[in-house]
Amino acid sequence: MEKGDNKGNLKKEIEDVLMSNLGSIGFIDSGVGGLTVVKEALKQLPNEKLIYLGDTARCPYGPRPAEQVIQFTWEMTAFLLKKNIKMLVIACNTATAVALDEIRAKVSIPVVGVILPGSRAALKATQKNEVGIIGTVGTVKSQAYQTAILSKSPTTKVISLACPKFVSIVESNESHSPIAKMLVAESLKPLKKENLDTLILGCTHYPLLSPIIQAYMGTEVKLIDSGAETVSEVSTLLDYFGIAAAPQRISLTHEFYTTGSPKMFQDIASDWLQLEKLNIKKVYLSTLSQ
Amino acid sequence: MEKGDNKGNLKKEIEDVLMSNLGSIGFIDSGVGGLTVVKEALKQLPNEKLIYLGDTARCPYGPRPAEQVIQFTWEMTAFLLKKNIKMLVIACNTATAVALDEIRAKVSIPVVGVILPGSRAALKATQKNEVGIIGTVGTVKSQAYQTAILSKSPTTKVISLACPKFVSIVESNESHSPIAKMLVAESLKPLKKENLDTLILGCTHYPLLSPIIQAYMGTEVKLIDSGAETVSEVSTLLDYFGIAAAPQRISLTHEFYTTGSPKMFQDIASDWLQLEKLNIKKVYLSTLSQ
Repeated sequence: MEKGDNKGNLKKEIEDVLMSNLGSIGFIDSGVGGLTVVKEALKQLPNEKLIYLGDTARCPYGPRPAEQVIQFTWEMTAFLLKKNIKMLVIACNTATAVALDEIRAKVSIPVVGVILPGSRAALKATQKNEVGIIGTVGTVKSQAYQTAILSKSPTTKVISLACPKFVSIVESNESHSPIAKMLVAESLKPLKKENLDTLILGCTHYPLLSPIIQAYMGTEVKLIDSGAETVSEVSTLLDYFGIAAAPQRISLTHEFYTTGSPKMFQDIASDWLQLEKLNIKKVYLSTLSQ
Repeated sequence: MEKGDNKGNLKKEIEDVLMSNLGSIGFIDSGVGGLTVVKEALKQLPNEKLIYLGDTARCPYGPRPAEQVIQFTWEMTAFLLKKNIKMLVIACNTATAVALDEIRAKVSIPVVGVILPGSRAALKATQKNEVGIIGTVGTVKSQAYQTAILSKSPTTKVISLACPKFVSIVESNESHSPIAKMLVAESLKPLKKENLDTLILGCTHYPLLSPIIQAYMGTEVKLIDSGAETVSEVSTLLDYFGIAAAPQRISLTHEFYTTGSPKMFQDIASDWLQLEKLNIKKVYLSTLSQ
């Protein structure tokens, strides 16, 4: 009887391991910024296995031409599709702005971007009907947030500002440094005179700077973390399509991949996610267009 | 030339009127509670035409047997399906708890309930991993919130409490009365000793009482308005399925139907929605089971 039970347990464990390798949620980003989305997913969707790919070697995406960002995004997507993901999150505003529609049209699993969730949350939060957006040059130039917000609410005033230096500060793990504080103040100065009550952090790297952004803008301005909002969309679609994972009997081993230095990735990820041991591997996507 | 322009304008206006009658979003509730969802929809989705049906004559649903609530919900659904709705929102927790799965399985348009959005928002908000739920007897008895929350996050502590007297207070337009304050304090007393930081208003009537609920529970407890969260899900699905309305060139005339007194409905709706002239009609659903 005891032996039978053990066999049963072993079988269950094997099933669990197999199941946990199926149907993960994939996240892609130009670097570590998408970890802000992962952090929310760990909190809101603790049953889900997550696989993350950060293209740190080619970060930042913000200043690159749209065609190149689309190509890089396809390379990351192809890498994760081989890992049996059931949903793909483009956890990067720049990539969402230029590549979401194309990728969504061509892959068979649900694909979620970060711009619509951020736009929706801003419309929900604003009382003054005036919303600010900060993002990379690529995101701001694409006007993707303006288009999304105005298509929903044509009377909303939308002000956007590119903050091209923020991503590098985060990727070099200097978010807590005095230089970060100076840079934030200098970059956001044009927004201080505006009447906005809601500011979209339109780049998944920016929440790592949110304490100093909040301090500079003042507590009356609500910061919208587009990544955190994206997890609500992911959860909605998992439920709607009936593909949410059941509670797991084993602890999940999430997988992290970077095209850059695993050490640097580990430092930032451990600090941000408050997890010590992460399963991080270096990968090579393409050497053609770095 | 001028004549032609006028003709063109007239044609556009006719098209707009025709279009505005197609593809509305339908909302059903046991009474006026679902107006808390409508209020958020007016804010977050100003391009969408809304059609609302409140079954005030048979309110409250909370104490009724599940079979009867399912029957009433089907009667309301059938009424709205004839009005060309593109999406149905069951803006009532009691009806969502017992009828959502069945209705979703049998109708061809997307159907959204209020329990999953409320559950997701609570998991997002709680820092202590302890969530309270207040609702009708029917909702609490169904354990629908517990099931939803624990299936997503098995370690979350969930405490629920039925507050059967709240709906009548709201439906009789006494939300601002001293008796409402006393009743809230008396009903919520068992929750005060709990360690929760998040409380789901698990009935769409309750947000009309939220100032006094917040005052009694204290500002450290975050109240989750399940209705407001539901509009985020509606918006997500409209975008995902590509059926969101474009900005309208004419002002929308939303439609409101009640099985009870249009006068009483008008008083509550005008106050809550801050709209003076509402298009409210009395309807008769079924006289068999009132």
